This record gives sequence, structure tokens and C-alpha cells, in this order.
Amino acid sequence: MCGENPTSNSKTSSVSPANGNGCTIPPSDHVLNLEQGDPAVYESYWRKMGDKCTMVISGSELMSYISDFTSVCWFLEPALEAAVRRLHRTVGNAVVDGDRHIVVGTGSTQLYQAALYALTSPGGPEPFSVVSAAPYYSSYPDETDYIRSALYKWTGDAYTFNKTGHGPYIEVVNTPNNPDGTLREAVVKNRGDQGKLIHDLAYYWPQYTPITRPADHDIMYFTFSKSTGHAGSRIGWAIVKDKEVARKMSKFVELSSLGVSKDSQQRAAKIMGVICDDYENCKSTDNSELFFDHCRQIMADRWERLRKVVEQSVIFSLPNYPQKYCIFSGESTEPYPAFAWMEANEDVDTEKVLRGQIKVQGRTGRRFGVDQRYVRISMLSREDVFNKFLERLSTIKSVTNGH
Amino acid sequence: MCGENPTSNSKTSSVSPANGNGCTIPPSDHVLNLEQGDPAVYESYWRKMGDKCTMVISGSELMSYISDFTSVCWFLEPALEAAVRRLHRTVGNAVVDGDRHIVVGTGSTQLYQAALYALTSPGGPEPFSVVSAAPYYSSYPDETDYIRSALYKWTGDAYTFNKTGHGPYIEVVNTPNNPDGTLREAVVKNRGDQGKLIHDLAYYWPQYTPITRPADHDIMYFTFSKSTGHAGSRIGWAIVKDKEVARKMSKFVELSSLGVSKDSQQRAAKIMGVICDDYENCKSTDNSELFFDHCRQIMADRWERLRKVVEQSVIFSLPNYPQKYCIFSGESTEPYPAFAWMEANEDVDTEKVLRGQIKVQGRTGRRFGVDQRYVRISMLSREDVFNKFLERLSTIKSVTNGH
Repeated sequence: MCGENPTSNSKTSSVSPANGNGCTIPPSDHVLNLEQGDPAVYESYWRKMGDKCTMVISGSELMSYISDFTSVCWFLEPALEAAVRRLHRTVGNAVVDGDRHIVVGTGSTQLYQAALYALTSPGGPEPFSVVSAAPYYSSYPDETDYIRSALYKWTGDAYTFNKTGHGPYIEVVNTPNNPDGTLREAVVKNRGDQGKLIHDLAYYWPQYTPITRPADHDIMYFTFSKSTGHAGSRIGWAIVKDKEVARKMSKFVELSSLGVSKDSQQRAAKIMGVICDDYENCKSTDNSELFFDHCRQIMADRWERLRKVVEQSVIFSLPNYPQKYCIFSGESTEPYPAFAWMEANEDVDTEKVLRGQIKVQGRTGRRFGVDQRYVRISMLSREDVFNKFLERLSTIKSVTNGH
Repeated sequence: MCGENPTSNSKTSSVSPANGNGCTIPPSDHVLNLEQGDPAVYESYWRKMGDKCTMVISGSELMSYISDFTSVCWFLEPALEAAVRRLHRTVGNAVVDGDRHIVVGTGSTQLYQAALYALTSPGGPEPFSVVSAAPYYSSYPDETDYIRSALYKWTGDAYTFNKTGHGPYIEVVNTPNNPDGTLREAVVKNRGDQGKLIHDLAYYWPQYTPITRPADHDIMYFTFSKSTGHAGSRIGWAIVKDKEVARKMSKFVELSSLGVSKDSQQRAAKIMGVICDDYENCKSTDNSELFFDHCRQIMADRWERLRKVVEQSVIFSLPNYPQKYCIFSGESTEPYPAFAWMEANEDVDTEKVLRGQIKVQGRTGRRFGVDQRYVRISMLSREDVFNKFLERLSTIKSVTNGH
């Protein structure tokens, strides 16, 4: 999932346009907005690709609502479906063969809700409980409850539900997890057929984590925003085993928005195609200019530099992640999550400390169902913004004093 | 609103690809799908425009979630906002000056739901009743109830509610109305501050109806699908007087899909810009090649031909619409609705008759809250499909016998 909700913190309305759209290095007195996961880090790679990924759409193309009436997902462009399957085969991060259905959504945000609907509709007297292990993605609660559905309701931490909850439930397994980058499995145990799973695999890509095996869950979804960095296109896709579930997810997207932008579907197909072509055509043993390898190198470099600053300060700590064998790269690699999950070594409101002392806006742990000692910081900003962040972070000498 | 739900009639999964994507004239034994309002009629106009409307997007553009953090609708591209205001000023069909807020949605389908949310959230003990005068757009009931919200519930015909309903309500005024093309005003009367209005103005464009005045309602929305025919882009926009309502509608779109495709927003801005440029730059007194004039001519021609066939058959009737003065064209004009609302002169299931006798798929009046003597037929198909429809319709000699 995306790690967003840009308007959640009203203070960010006056921040510098650091994320994505801005072009200048923010002056030292401007707030650095690292609250959202806007994937600006990828922009320079695509700029270097020049015209290879340029999408051209004439005024008379892509005008119909309909892509393929015979498909379970009638608004899914066949070109995108083919590109999605090819991309997963290239990366090896998901099983797409043998009767798997693809459902396209307006970002994975819409697919999360489509999955809830498909698993609970038409519903019984009591809503399904929706749970996820804390720290969980901060938008799950609002995205589950805003419309006050009688089909499902947000119930919070899956560990708590495992001990004291009852009745039908859906557990959302976000792996690697936003915010803390851990690899996860379902937490709620031994409920017979009361439980259903949704796998949110937004970050299961080689730049963020070793690909240990092709994921093969009942309902799993990915997003263009976090795989290639094209968040503005709002394209997500689910891979679904059961045809009836895929049909109901498609029905949700139909009722919610009558399909998904074809302009963006075609653009996503084109960009995925270029990535796959590059991997197929690469004759050298040096893959460092290919998309996933290049981006993993950037993330590795950022994490190394961040860890150095954090170690020197001795006032924050970061999670440590075990190395695993990555079937994509063919070597043992470390996770380099899209967010830094920083914990203060004293009991303070870390979000407040960072904003107050160094004008860095993160997102407090409280939003993720844990305590205020934690803060989530985006690792996906533009390079100049990331450098500025490290520079400012290195000036903090204490979390209890102002500066 | 769009007039869709392409999967609502399961029989249509085997129809010829007549709507939008197909390229060949359907053979005589194929079903003509005129159930949806896929706006294929517009394709030939845009094809003639050649490269003028071609959209080019490089791989590194439009990548951010964010368009303008300082805006009430932070994911609205400023270029689209400007184009929307300019288009309405050109056409004169809506007031956009003086503190009107623009909210973009993934089609007007999403904006309908955003408006319901904005007017009812966080909600009280009882849901708001949502009503619209029958015959009402067939997707309102499902789009209101699919998620079983405690905020609002579909309550049906506004005339019935006016007589016997009570409590807080929202009336959706769809004008010109889908399916029957009539001009409408609110039906529910004298409820103090219990009632709120949403105006669905999807068809308030010069090709369908005389523009009698700039609409100036609290919440009104339009769609790219029915204004220019670009349904595949899923772009709608609302014009909202109250800032807090606009903010809540934007919040809905944020929680529902984390914004709206920027690729499509930019494409819509470009195409609207070309239409406005053409009107501004036209030096001749002959406007017949300009978008709205050209399309009105096509619709007038179709309606004239349809009325001739229907009059000859003496077994169906069509609504008659009064002429009105159109401020856009500067002359008195007739409405040419996007759908033909056909009524059989005997008590039969007209949808069934058309499908059985001439293999034409319409949508039954029952779906619009009225009886089965009525059927809605799309007037927006490709020219060859429309011709085929008239040809087949002229062969019906009786609604009670097969042929």
C-alpha cells in the first residue's frame, strides 16, 4: 500500500514542494516533507531513459468504457494484463500462470477496498472484523471505516484480535510491511473458516527486499506507484485465484468508478514493457543500469548513509534486517525498505522532535497503532531532499532539548 | 451520469464488439448492444482532428501523487482546473467564477459517491435517504447501496418520498435526465433544512439540449465521458460552492483512490483546450465543424431518422421535447438526448421484444424504477451500428408476435 494520505497532517499544507513536483533545493528554514511516500527518487532514472517510455495517445484513442467484455475484469486493457504477467515472470515475485485472474484498480487503495467488498458482500447481520498486525499501514483504518459499511469494520491490531477477538474476520498481511519493512505472515491462528486473507505486496520488489519466492496467495495486489514510481497514474493490480472473487472485485471497481483510466493503463503497460525488454536484451553481465538493479543500488546507498548518521547520533535506532537469498539477483541481499522506521531511545514524541528541531516532517508511530517514540520517514524523496535530511539529522544532539 | 453498468446484463457478454472498440459492421445475426451509453459516436470527430489533440507523456512526467498541496483538491492538476473553467465559460452551461471549487473524480461515478459522503459524514443514528425522480438513472440504486453504508441509503423515487417519506434526505437531480432526456428540478418540497441537493449535469451540453442558462447549484458535476466522448479516461469534475463540502469530497476521493489519474487529467485538459481554441479562433460564421455544433448536427440527424422509423411503425412512441432558446447557439433548439426512451403502445416487455425480434439490446424501464413497456436505447453508438439499428427497428410489425 502506498503510505500516503497527503492531507492527513494539516501542517504540511505549507511545506516546500519537496516531494515530486518541486525543482529547487529547499532552503534551510523550510520543512522537509518526508511524511508521504511520494516516489520522487525514481524520476531521475526515467528522465535518463529519454523517449523510450514516451506515451503517445491521439485524440480518438482509448475512448470506450470497455476493454474486453468477455473478461472477468471487462475494463482491464489486454495490453496491461499481458505486461503485468510478463513483469512478474521477469522478476519472479508472484505466480501469474495457471488460471490467475488480474483485476486492475485506481491504485492499490481501490483494490484494498475491492477485496474487502469481494470477501464480505452481500454481508450478514454483523460486519467482518478487519485487522492487521501493528505497526500497520496508517491508512487502513480510515480506508476501512470512512463510509461506515455494514459489511466490514476496522478492528485494529491482529495480535490483539488473535488473543481476544472473535467472529468472521479479514487479516491484511502487508509484506514487506509499511512502515517497518519486516517480512510478514498471517498472525491470527486457528479459526477454522472464519478468517480470510488479503496480501498487500506493494513493496515486494527487488529494490526494497530480497525476492525469496514467487508469492502465491489467494488475493494479492501490487501498485505501479511503488514498483516503478509512477504514483500519479493511479494504477494497481490484483492477482486473484478464485474467479468469483475476481468478478466481485471487478464489480466493486465498476460501481466505484466505472473502470480505471485507460490512458494510465496503457502507459503502465508501456513502461513495464520497457523494463522487461531491457532485462531480456541485456547482453552484458553488468545489470547496474537496469531498472530494479539501479534502484536497489540507490536504496542500498541511502540506507548505508542513513545508518551511519543514526549510529553516530546514538539517540535513534533503526530496525536490523536479516540477509536473504534473492532469486531475482541470484545473491544474498539485505532489505532496503521504502521507509525508515526510526525509534527514539528516550520516551519522546519523535515526530514532534524532528519537526521542532530540524524541520523534518515524518509520520508519528501513533498513526500506525504503536507509540510516539516511533516515526516513519520516507526514503523515496528526491536525492537533494534526502541529502538535506541527513545533513539536518546529523545536527541533532539530544531529543529532549531544542537547538 | 454515465448510463453504464456494462456487466449488468449477463447476456451482453457475448454481443458483438459494437460499442467503441469494434471495427466491423456487426453481421445481421449478432446482437446490437445499445444497452450502455458508450460514446462511440464521437470517435470519428476526434479522428478527423488528427494530431491536434495528441497527448505526449514522457516516462518521467506526472509521477507524483501530488498536484498542489495548497489546493482544497490537492490531486487536481492545475491545467485541468483551468481547462474546466475555460470550457464552461466558452459553453455558458455552468457558473465557475466567484469562489467556486473544482473537485476532480475518477469519472462522475466517483463524484456522485463523494457528494453523498460529503453531505452525510460523519453521520448520525439514521442514514440519509437518497432519492431521485423516476425514471432515474439505473446505477444510482447500486452505487448508493453496494457498500451498505450507515451514512446513506437508496430510497427510490423522489415523487413517492415527497408524499410519504420523512427524515433527512438527499435528492439527486439529473438534468437533462438519463434515461428520458427531460429537464428537471427538485421534486421533494417544503422540508426545511432536512434536504440537500446534488445536480448530475452529465448531459447538460449543447449537443444534447439547449443551454438555457449557466447552471449555478451548490454541488453539480459533469463528465469527460459525455461532454467530449472520452469515457475511457474516467475523468469527471464537480463544481462546488461550499469550501468545506469541496474539502470533504476531495477527502472521499483521497480515501477511495488516493487521487485521480494525472495522465488522464492532462489529456482532458488538452482536449478541452483544443475545443475552446477552435471556438475562439473561428473567424467564419459557419461553426459546423466545431465540436459542439458538429455533434449537435449528428444528434439532430439521428433523432430525425429515429422519429421517422418510430412514427411509421405505430407500435412505439418517443417523448416530445419543447424547443428552447439556447444561449450557446443563439437560436431556439430542440433537445437531442443521448438515449431514446421508447415506450411500447401495448403492455409488453419491450426490452425482450427488441432482443427477441430484432436482436437489439436495450435496457428495460424496470431498471429505471418504471415499467417494462419502456426501454432505453443508446443514441451514441457508431454510425454503422446506429444505421443497422434503424434498419432492424423498421422491420418490426407487431410487438406481440415473433417474426
